[in-house]
Amino acid sequence: MPVHLKKEIENLKKELLTLCGMVEDSLFQAVKSIKKRDVKLAEKVIDSDIEIDRMEVKVEEDCLKVLALHQPVAIDLRFIITALKINNDLERIGDLAVSIAENSRFLSAQKPIDMLFDFETMAEKTQAMVKKSLDALVNIDCDLASQVCEDDDEIDAINRQMYDQTKRQMKQTPENIETLIHLLSVSRHLERIADHATNIAEDVIYMVKGEIVRHNPSSSSKTAPA
Amino acid sequence: MPVHLKKEIENLKKELLTLCGMVEDSLFQAVKSIKKRDVKLAEKVIDSDIEIDRMEVKVEEDCLKVLALHQPVAIDLRFIITALKINNDLERIGDLAVSIAENSRFLSAQKPIDMLFDFETMAEKTQAMVKKSLDALVNIDCDLASQVCEDDDEIDAINRQMYDQTKRQMKQTPENIETLIHLLSVSRHLERIADHATNIAEDVIYMVKGEIVRHNPSSSSKTAPA
Repeated sequence: MPVHLKKEIENLKKELLTLCGMVEDSLFQAVKSIKKRDVKLAEKVIDSDIEIDRMEVKVEEDCLKVLALHQPVAIDLRFIITALKINNDLERIGDLAVSIAENSRFLSAQKPIDMLFDFETMAEKTQAMVKKSLDALVNIDCDLASQVCEDDDEIDAINRQMYDQTKRQMKQTPENIETLIHLLSVSRHLERIADHATNIAEDVIYMVKGEIVRHNPSSSSKTAPA
Repeated sequence: MPVHLKKEIENLKKELLTLCGMVEDSLFQAVKSIKKRDVKLAEKVIDSDIEIDRMEVKVEEDCLKVLALHQPVAIDLRFIITALKINNDLERIGDLAVSIAENSRFLSAQKPIDMLFDFETMAEKTQAMVKKSLDALVNIDCDLASQVCEDDDEIDAINRQMYDQTKRQMKQTPENIETLIHLLSVSRHLERIADHATNIAEDVIYMVKGEIVRHNPSSSSKTAPA
């Protein structure tokens, strides 16, 4: 690989890591704002999303520049296309962190109720999946990427459990329906974040092995509707 | 533009149109299965998603081939990157049509209840947005793309209205809570499909004008949580 191209690819990796750090932080703060019922923290997450959006645009433009200037082929070309896709997934995780912060803003103003599901475990596991998927990209580590795909099943299971509990709880305490819809929504956002981390991991595997693991029906959960 | 590259780009446009046709059909059938309470049709939509997934992989591979063989620059390079992103959006619309078909499978087995919202209008408008966004790409028509972005506000408004009605209805008829969660889910899936159509339209505008209209806060709705 020419030295200039190598340098550009290293730079793209660094930019993706920066974006990933921003997104992880946003998710961490959004989850914390729910736990602490902290509206100000939720507002901070919502306001700082613009920085994530700007970074996403920068990464995309830099990928295009590398393509135009260096016209990479083979694994280098695939890396840049993978970077473009992962960039998109990271930005969407940022959007979902904002959605969680918006739920948090609503929930903080309501009478506290039991979280119904193992929210902390779900949040921690989802956060770890995002981190692992990026580590898999940066270190070109297919084993780690496969682990992320496996972890997704656990998140899907927690989300299904949450859905069943919410249904029951809505019937028992109809006065809490709005709060319960928001809680269900938090669970669903975390589940979608885990899906994006899985997309990233699948793209890493495809980049390295040329083996398409996305669209594998076993890796998606479709039983909880909301 | 070299003749070979021109031919390849025309071919990519055709492939995207084919994929769009498949996705539109899937969405149309999913919506029809809800209206007609037709479980078999819903199953057909679920089963045929594999064809959409295969087509998405083919488009991505063909984009990579064109990049590797022709090393396009300027507008041609941006077209191919846009095609890659739109390919991804179309595949996700296909996934959401499957989710609607899954809601339909559930709803058909329940006692029929009022749809609560203007489901047909929402479904028709969403379908039209998907079609328009692809027409905007193929004809490089920024005015049409801008129209799609405007249409999204209307879908967001219907989704919010649906959310408010569902809340009320859940309190009045707690025995229908599960059905209502599924109806809310259909509305949310349609809203997300409209978002993907908006993404496509925004990418067309960016491709042509280099003007970033995505991440424009006015184009997204955040008030309905689920």
